[in-house]
Amino acid sequence: MSEGKNNTSDLEQFFSANEKRMEDELFELLRIPSVSAKSEHNADTKRCAEWMKQSLDKIGVPAKIYSTKGHPIVVGEWRKAPGAPTVLIYGHYDVQPAEPLDLWTTPAFEPAVRDGKIFARGSVDDKGQIFLHVKALEAHLTTRGKLPVNVIVLVEGEEEIGSDNLAEFVESNKEMLKADAVVISDSAMFAEGQPSILSSLRGLAYFEINVQGPAGDLHSGSYGGAVQNPATALARIISTFHDGNGHIAIEGFYDKVRDWDAKIREGMRNLPFDDAGMMKEVSVDALGGEKGYTTLEKLWIRPTCEVNGLLSGYTGEGAKTVLPAKAMAKVSCRLVPDQNPKEIEKLMAAHVAKVAPPGVKATVTALHGGSPWRADLDGPIFEAAKRALAKSYSKEPVVVGEGGSIPVVSDFQRVLNAPVLLVGFGLPGENAHAPNEWMSEENFRIGMRAMAALWDEYAAGTG
Amino acid sequence: MSEGKNNTSDLEQFFSANEKRMEDELFELLRIPSVSAKSEHNADTKRCAEWMKQSLDKIGVPAKIYSTKGHPIVVGEWRKAPGAPTVLIYGHYDVQPAEPLDLWTTPAFEPAVRDGKIFARGSVDDKGQIFLHVKALEAHLTTRGKLPVNVIVLVEGEEEIGSDNLAEFVESNKEMLKADAVVISDSAMFAEGQPSILSSLRGLAYFEINVQGPAGDLHSGSYGGAVQNPATALARIISTFHDGNGHIAIEGFYDKVRDWDAKIREGMRNLPFDDAGMMKEVSVDALGGEKGYTTLEKLWIRPTCEVNGLLSGYTGEGAKTVLPAKAMAKVSCRLVPDQNPKEIEKLMAAHVAKVAPPGVKATVTALHGGSPWRADLDGPIFEAAKRALAKSYSKEPVVVGEGGSIPVVSDFQRVLNAPVLLVGFGLPGENAHAPNEWMSEENFRIGMRAMAALWDEYAAGTG
Repeated sequence: MSEGKNNTSDLEQFFSANEKRMEDELFELLRIPSVSAKSEHNADTKRCAEWMKQSLDKIGVPAKIYSTKGHPIVVGEWRKAPGAPTVLIYGHYDVQPAEPLDLWTTPAFEPAVRDGKIFARGSVDDKGQIFLHVKALEAHLTTRGKLPVNVIVLVEGEEEIGSDNLAEFVESNKEMLKADAVVISDSAMFAEGQPSILSSLRGLAYFEINVQGPAGDLHSGSYGGAVQNPATALARIISTFHDGNGHIAIEGFYDKVRDWDAKIREGMRNLPFDDAGMMKEVSVDALGGEKGYTTLEKLWIRPTCEVNGLLSGYTGEGAKTVLPAKAMAKVSCRLVPDQNPKEIEKLMAAHVAKVAPPGVKATVTALHGGSPWRADLDGPIFEAAKRALAKSYSKEPVVVGEGGSIPVVSDFQRVLNAPVLLVGFGLPGENAHAPNEWMSEENFRIGMRAMAALWDEYAAGTG
Repeated sequence: MSEGKNNTSDLEQFFSANEKRMEDELFELLRIPSVSAKSEHNADTKRCAEWMKQSLDKIGVPAKIYSTKGHPIVVGEWRKAPGAPTVLIYGHYDVQPAEPLDLWTTPAFEPAVRDGKIFARGSVDDKGQIFLHVKALEAHLTTRGKLPVNVIVLVEGEEEIGSDNLAEFVESNKEMLKADAVVISDSAMFAEGQPSILSSLRGLAYFEINVQGPAGDLHSGSYGGAVQNPATALARIISTFHDGNGHIAIEGFYDKVRDWDAKIREGMRNLPFDDAGMMKEVSVDALGGEKGYTTLEKLWIRPTCEVNGLLSGYTGEGAKTVLPAKAMAKVSCRLVPDQNPKEIEKLMAAHVAKVAPPGVKATVTALHGGSPWRADLDGPIFEAAKRALAKSYSKEPVVVGEGGSIPVVSDFQRVLNAPVLLVGFGLPGENAHAPNEWMSEENFRIGMRAMAALWDEYAAGTG
């Protein structure tokens, strides 16, 4: 093993000398409103893919743009390290919609630095994080003329809308994408200055539940009490999703939930998490969820069933005495290994059919799903990451979970049969998906260095 | 008694000759979008009051407009029948909102006749019904130059939003409004061709329930499972309003419900009600509500608790993984004698406070209320109505209940100490409060004649 042997002073010199220019380049990228969810931004999304391709070409990682049924995928390749392992670096250039715009302090697509934070839509999710990888590769290629490992960079444009076309692309191009490890930076560190490796992601099964009662809205006086009320029926259906302890009461829901490694769970329990801080952050006077689990366990290793939206009847100002014709709920379950979104769909549909009262028709439509994932935290890429992070941050990394979903992670692992390292440079409170999204300038700078160091460590650890 | 003695051929001649003109006038009234609930229609509501005043002036019932804190009240008076009784005819010129507009076959405020039905918002509730009274008075005044009784016509503009200012107006003007009987047409007949006298109305207690969770919308992955979901909390709160038998489970809710006269209840049970017909009418495969009661009992003599609207989180197309900051429900209870809306407000607030989970703040705001009412079905105005209806429809009237509310009825009875006759000319399926509201042309025509006959019968019966 080669721990500590890599000399990175040449890289450090390059990073120091080019810091300002690299941040300027990031700002250029952040100015492109590549909102994948909105077709009015299709030209921007396309322009953003072009920009990514050129930024890879420029540093000596020749890239191509692959069109899909949706937004294009950019792939850059550098394969001049025979005998060395190959890594696939994945990220996404698309961003969430910026609305509501009036809640942004400075415009969403005009990056601004305040208190060491780069504010812009996509700053941390995921443009800043994929771009620091590009700059890490540039450091190697410029100072040394080569990389210590073979590298494939894959940047997609549909992560925020479910990565619908990526799995097929990976399947169809698995020879080109064949790698010994996949590295993704699209997550957050546990705390400022605390480097973190992600051990798990929750999956997702997202539904729309529609309850149809009478053919049209009725007068609640003339019909109320005799005709089943679909809004009441929907509320009663939703109320059966959990028992009084916050445990999900859908039959079979937990059947596939796999136990966790006792050591990892112990490590998570030892992380200093501040429930009161979270309550203050979101302005509530009590937390919720499943009894018997810590907050981090509820977020990282337990599945959920959440209502994302409700709509029925009259919702305007004042009173309207209507018995609504229909009621709708958006409901999504976060899943943990080895729950399967398709199976959860079936359980949900069966549950709703069972509990829906007579006199209404309740239908469950699956909108999308993604598998949960858990890392196998052994092997050279993880060891190399631990060393590179420890050096760059002068602190040992911790293993964390993540409550959100990155649907492609399990696809990569399955199709490429390679371990996936999730090493993120976001921070708590970063407002990903919300107004005033930001990325720490320090993490952009240290992240580049850490990822540049990673390739040295990984090459040495596998050499 | 004078049953059958009144000769109405002069009136009949007048009605026949003026039918088309009177329908045209009604259409003019229906074109005014006097939606009391929406401040954007305030000018229309004012214009509608002006229109009503002029239509009374024109027929020789001089009218004044009285402003209130809300929409104005129109009062017309004709007092030239010394020794004859005085009747107060009440109606309302305001209408429900027309939304959802896209469900109307023809525009809500552009009356259209199809299959003998006048389609327009307000056609049956209540413009068509109050206007047929005006036309009945016109028939007397034009053909005979006088009325057989003294008449006060009171038309308000806030019935659809709770008649908030009417009770005070009646209190403050009880000398002017002093009457021997109050007559209201704002209800439906039991079936086509079956004249009906209403024996009871349900009251109303209307609430908005707001559940506040976190200060802003959160990412359902990053916070879901640990932060209480206000939409789920609201659904669970609503699910506690009823038990499994459709019985309302709010503590104390039934404490004041008075038993019914066995004869009237028996009469209601004997009315030929067709559950299958109602199911077909509203397109459901089963009815709902409280076990142990017939459909008519559920509608007429039992209280309800209905959800009128639900709103929370993301309700657009597709999926958005949001943990909503808040959730709202519009909920209203129909009340029966002797339930009191103020008491029910307190019970509802106490119930919601009791069942709301920690981590959210649930508030109950009372939007409006109205007392339930039951008629004392004796005395000259009821006898006169039975005769007038039997003649005009060639069929004996039946006594029915009504599930809806006319909040002012109990106010009139209490303040004026006069019996209230509720005689309606709507029909089942008329879509009051819903898209494609209609009134039967035939009932507009026969209704005028019946009400013109009523004044002859009443004068004769009290003479």
